[in-house]
Amino acid sequence: MDFQKINSMGFGEFVDVFGNIIEKCPLIAAAIWSQRPFADLADLEKHVFDFIEALPQSGKEGILRCHPDLAGRELQLGTLTPESQREQRNAGLRDLDREERRQMDQLNCEYKKLFGFPFVIAARLSDKATMMRELARRLRNQPSQELCAALDEVRKICHLRLEDILRSPMDP
Amino acid sequence: MDFQKINSMGFGEFVDVFGNIIEKCPLIAAAIWSQRPFADLADLEKHVFDFIEALPQSGKEGILRCHPDLAGRELQLGTLTPESQREQRNAGLRDLDREERRQMDQLNCEYKKLFGFPFVIAARLSDKATMMRELARRLRNQPSQELCAALDEVRKICHLRLEDILRSPMDP
Repeated sequence: MDFQKINSMGFGEFVDVFGNIIEKCPLIAAAIWSQRPFADLADLEKHVFDFIEALPQSGKEGILRCHPDLAGRELQLGTLTPESQREQRNAGLRDLDREERRQMDQLNCEYKKLFGFPFVIAARLSDKATMMRELARRLRNQPSQELCAALDEVRKICHLRLEDILRSPMDP
Repeated sequence: MDFQKINSMGFGEFVDVFGNIIEKCPLIAAAIWSQRPFADLADLEKHVFDFIEALPQSGKEGILRCHPDLAGRELQLGTLTPESQREQRNAGLRDLDREERRQMDQLNCEYKKLFGFPFVIAARLSDKATMMRELARRLRNQPSQELCAALDEVRKICHLRLEDILRSPMDP
């Protein structure tokens, strides 16, 4: 898909294609449609990141709260968004053994209680051992520091999802 | 459901229950969870409306773009959100005759071309004749005036959806 095609999209098609580059936040793609034309991937994602940056802290936390648990019940049930399902499955998170699952559940729980949002990490850039180590490490962050770290992961996930879309054929 | 129960919800449950009070924008419910406890419906919705008001214009337009067409293809296919499906069906929008559907399609199309977002109206407070008249009338608004009118409808829809949730039994 190229930017001539992207810049010619009506908002309906644009939101269909880009609505989940930020997990479950089609509002963001729908907002930045106002700012087309986009020069390239970097330009489009800059508008996304600027939109997020301009949100109040509650809005930034809200974005994180739209993300699913890592290796949670929805992954097992297959009810994640297609993007999340693929990302978590490919990172090996469906293949945790009993002890790994218990540990992950416990750390996820502690994390959510402490920060008020779920642990978010770009699963495609990681593997299950690293993710568990990161989860334990980031639990020791200060809240403001962890909000930044988590939003940084949101941006990485967005970048990878945008790359996928741009690599996809023009007429799927 | 009462506010003691609502204020005790974790963010996961809160977003499950209130995620669609603004159509397809769970980000907003997820954001205002930071601001609990809420005193009552008026207090909760004030946080929602303040969040929307603080968005840049592109974000306000983005909210409108997350709304479906009135009497559009998704209504016929049954692929709207459950709330929208019920609202549009109860307003008689599944029962348009061929000529009414043609007119509605044409007006929707003109409206989207002119304003860059779909025509939004609180269908439950209206009927098909009134909605068609309103659509034709609002097409003559200035863009800034129409953005305000449309967001006013978003607030009415939100209020009605909140009332529904609060009327629902504690343990459905």
